[in-house]
Amino acid sequence: MKCGLVAADGAVLHRETRSTPRALPPSGGGGRAVLDALLETVVELSQKAAADGHRVRAVGVVVPGIIDAEQGTVSAENLLWVNTPVRAEIQAALGPDHQVHLAHDVRAGGYAELRQGALRGTTNSLFLPLGTGIAAAMVVDGSLVSGDGYAGELGHTRFVHGEAAELCACGQYGCLETVASAAALARRYGARTGRVVDGAREVLELLAEGDADAAIVWDEALTALIDALVLYTTLVAPTRIAIGGGLVGAGETLLAPLRAGVHERLTFQREPEIVAAELGEEAGCLGAALLAWDRVTVDESGEQTE
Amino acid sequence: MKCGLVAADGAVLHRETRSTPRALPPSGGGGRAVLDALLETVVELSQKAAADGHRVRAVGVVVPGIIDAEQGTVSAENLLWVNTPVRAEIQAALGPDHQVHLAHDVRAGGYAELRQGALRGTTNSLFLPLGTGIAAAMVVDGSLVSGDGYAGELGHTRFVHGEAAELCACGQYGCLETVASAAALARRYGARTGRVVDGAREVLELLAEGDADAAIVWDEALTALIDALVLYTTLVAPTRIAIGGGLVGAGETLLAPLRAGVHERLTFQREPEIVAAELGEEAGCLGAALLAWDRVTVDESGEQTE
Repeated sequence: MKCGLVAADGAVLHRETRSTPRALPPSGGGGRAVLDALLETVVELSQKAAADGHRVRAVGVVVPGIIDAEQGTVSAENLLWVNTPVRAEIQAALGPDHQVHLAHDVRAGGYAELRQGALRGTTNSLFLPLGTGIAAAMVVDGSLVSGDGYAGELGHTRFVHGEAAELCACGQYGCLETVASAAALARRYGARTGRVVDGAREVLELLAEGDADAAIVWDEALTALIDALVLYTTLVAPTRIAIGGGLVGAGETLLAPLRAGVHERLTFQREPEIVAAELGEEAGCLGAALLAWDRVTVDESGEQTE
Repeated sequence: MKCGLVAADGAVLHRETRSTPRALPPSGGGGRAVLDALLETVVELSQKAAADGHRVRAVGVVVPGIIDAEQGTVSAENLLWVNTPVRAEIQAALGPDHQVHLAHDVRAGGYAELRQGALRGTTNSLFLPLGTGIAAAMVVDGSLVSGDGYAGELGHTRFVHGEAAELCACGQYGCLETVASAAALARRYGARTGRVVDGAREVLELLAEGDADAAIVWDEALTALIDALVLYTTLVAPTRIAIGGGLVGAGETLLAPLRAGVHERLTFQREPEIVAAELGEEAGCLGAALLAWDRVTVDESGEQTE
């Protein structure tokens, strides 16, 4: 659990990481245990803020799950939450005068990149973290596109065709995520070679050492990513694309061929800058706080800063 | 040239069609002749409005070309316009107190469908006219997405792969437009059979008569269109998609298989309604007027209606 205290201007006052209790049986304490840990964190951070002379005005929570913003509930398989009333529980713990904003993790990360990271200054751009999975945060006309929580699933669009298309966890075939996520790189290298590797990191090390199978798996990922970036550019015309997630640790090994491939494919389209995201693993946490502050601005006029 | 007089509430007070003078040599009068015909139309319609007791407050012009909204200029190959100062010319003809709004034809049509047609009441939707070419007007969070004029080129995204992919006029291969536009249906039927047909209309007639080649060409178009709608749904999550352009004249022959194909392919995504656009060929003209009225609302407060 990444958490922190963030001032109205986006300055990070405090940052910490806590362990999330196991939810799943046999050893886990169920969804309630996770929720209790969240509430404890919120209360303790609020007390810490008070001790430091600040007052918590709003709480932002980012969860890898399905958020019902209207009801303030979250469903998340791994946490054993089913329509769990996270907003009401936080307000019961801190008091009803606290704004609570629940958000999608990738969109929150994209919002942080937009406000304080690699997408700063753009009005039409894309945040594309390549991690265990792939989702995207789309910035259009200066705002994040939510699509009622459904938008941005670039990882689940088809970029592998014919017999090479694998079944994705989402039930579709040939999704970008099946070939270009960090998890896919490790799985596909293993499938080719029969050798179990320690994640995408090891595939990248093998690639650097000149391993031919690693090169093939990497090229297939790049081909699909270039297709995806060309498609997004043709449809939404971003001026900048920030690649994030674990894979961007590969640096120019990833970014240089993406730039070259996109440049070569575009004809009439406007070419986007392709850059590394700046905020790393902190993006989601910071974005949650910034989104929560936005609610304070919306709901109260004037007195915004502490 | 489709033109008309539209009240602030979107009511069409007058509608007419005028011929556009030829621009291209040898018989054409160049870009100036087209511009003069446009100015004559604007002045005469303004006079007609006055005779009917109305006053023209704003002019909307929709052109199949590249619009520089800031400079008020248009470049359009077929009209022999190169950075032609359309806004300044109209203001010189009518007086500088007239708002002039230049817009992209498909986005103007989409705006009309959003305000008064098949997309009314939606905040996240798509207008996809299938005509000689294919472009799309994307509605996100209640507004048309422009991407500085570059967005919405769904017709130029790749949905035909491998050896079947044809070179598109845009310079890319396998674009939706190469297989699913009205022009592509006629061209591809001709290429299969060696028989010259009178446009997509004749291909649809042959399809209805059970012609096997027409069925193949039609199925290839449907497959690519279903791919495109699934992709757009996965990425942007529209609640409704309105198909327009000449091909929607095929009615349920087009819409029923699109609905069935999209339904079958979606797994976790929100399924959009797929409907026929309502405003037909008038959409662009009406949209131009509605966009022009919006500028009046933005630039003057209060006194909006006539």
